[in-house]
Amino acid sequence: MYLYLIRHGIAVDLDPLTVDAIASDELRSLTKAGRKKVAQVADRLAELELRFDLIITSPLVRARQTADILLDKQLSPTLEVSDRLKPAGTIESWLMEWSARSHDISTISTVALVGHEPNLSEWAELFLFGRSEGKIILKKSGIIGLKFTDNFKVGAAQLGCLIPPKYLLGSRS
Amino acid sequence: MYLYLIRHGIAVDLDPLTVDAIASDELRSLTKAGRKKVAQVADRLAELELRFDLIITSPLVRARQTADILLDKQLSPTLEVSDRLKPAGTIESWLMEWSARSHDISTISTVALVGHEPNLSEWAELFLFGRSEGKIILKKSGIIGLKFTDNFKVGAAQLGCLIPPKYLLGSRS
Repeated sequence: MYLYLIRHGIAVDLDPLTVDAIASDELRSLTKAGRKKVAQVADRLAELELRFDLIITSPLVRARQTADILLDKQLSPTLEVSDRLKPAGTIESWLMEWSARSHDISTISTVALVGHEPNLSEWAELFLFGRSEGKIILKKSGIIGLKFTDNFKVGAAQLGCLIPPKYLLGSRS
Repeated sequence: MYLYLIRHGIAVDLDPLTVDAIASDELRSLTKAGRKKVAQVADRLAELELRFDLIITSPLVRARQTADILLDKQLSPTLEVSDRLKPAGTIESWLMEWSARSHDISTISTVALVGHEPNLSEWAELFLFGRSEGKIILKKSGIIGLKFTDNFKVGAAQLGCLIPPKYLLGSRS
């Protein structure tokens, strides 16, 4: 089983005058440059023949837009939205949601989660070591690749890759 | 300070009939395909404008040849050889050697070490967490990028990248 953790692309800043910061944060969309970079990253992943059986995204607009681009580039046949991937979500709540559906995931071996920092790099450390020390730097549009011998479980992963977006763009893009 | 840990490329197998396995292992050279892949990785790193102030390599032939290619591609002005990067070398012995030369390293901010597994991924975990659990997968010609706020020290790094070579090659190479 492979789990890819993908951080959303560059989004517009939060309006400092906003009344409801949480609601406004949920609506922040990707910038034009952010959309372009995510599309370039997705093109490169497609070129490298990376495919996901399923993409699950945070419902926040900037994550959802990132996931939509990955879907458009045919990196996955299926996109789902999970509140567990919101900034307030925890790895335990997502794993509970995941294991509750184990009856319909027998054909799934590669999943991508699209979400936020610091959650994703923390989750990566938890999947790897069972604890989190803030040691992984995950840039916007960056990717962490985790390999599991069995199902997704805390402390059970190996780290296959940590790719900052620049390694997926470059002058050849 | 940045420290890049680079694993040598694909080398010829050890002759199973060899009398002195350690001496023979030291002489294993890169295969033709291994040399080509290292050259492609080096070209891509140069294109991404990654540069090292210093490359230090294990003296084993397959590492030395890998480092020579990185030097040929002008990724660094300087190449040194250190026995501390042999398979039997320890992170403590390399750090001792490194700190002993602190008078001449004031202008150095980015160092690449070319060496072997499982040493390099173990060293990465030690630099990150102060302990090693075999959780990082470093492929031949693959790269680990560590970021330090100050000098190289166990437990003091953040992980900036872990790049399997396929992300540096692909159909555009």
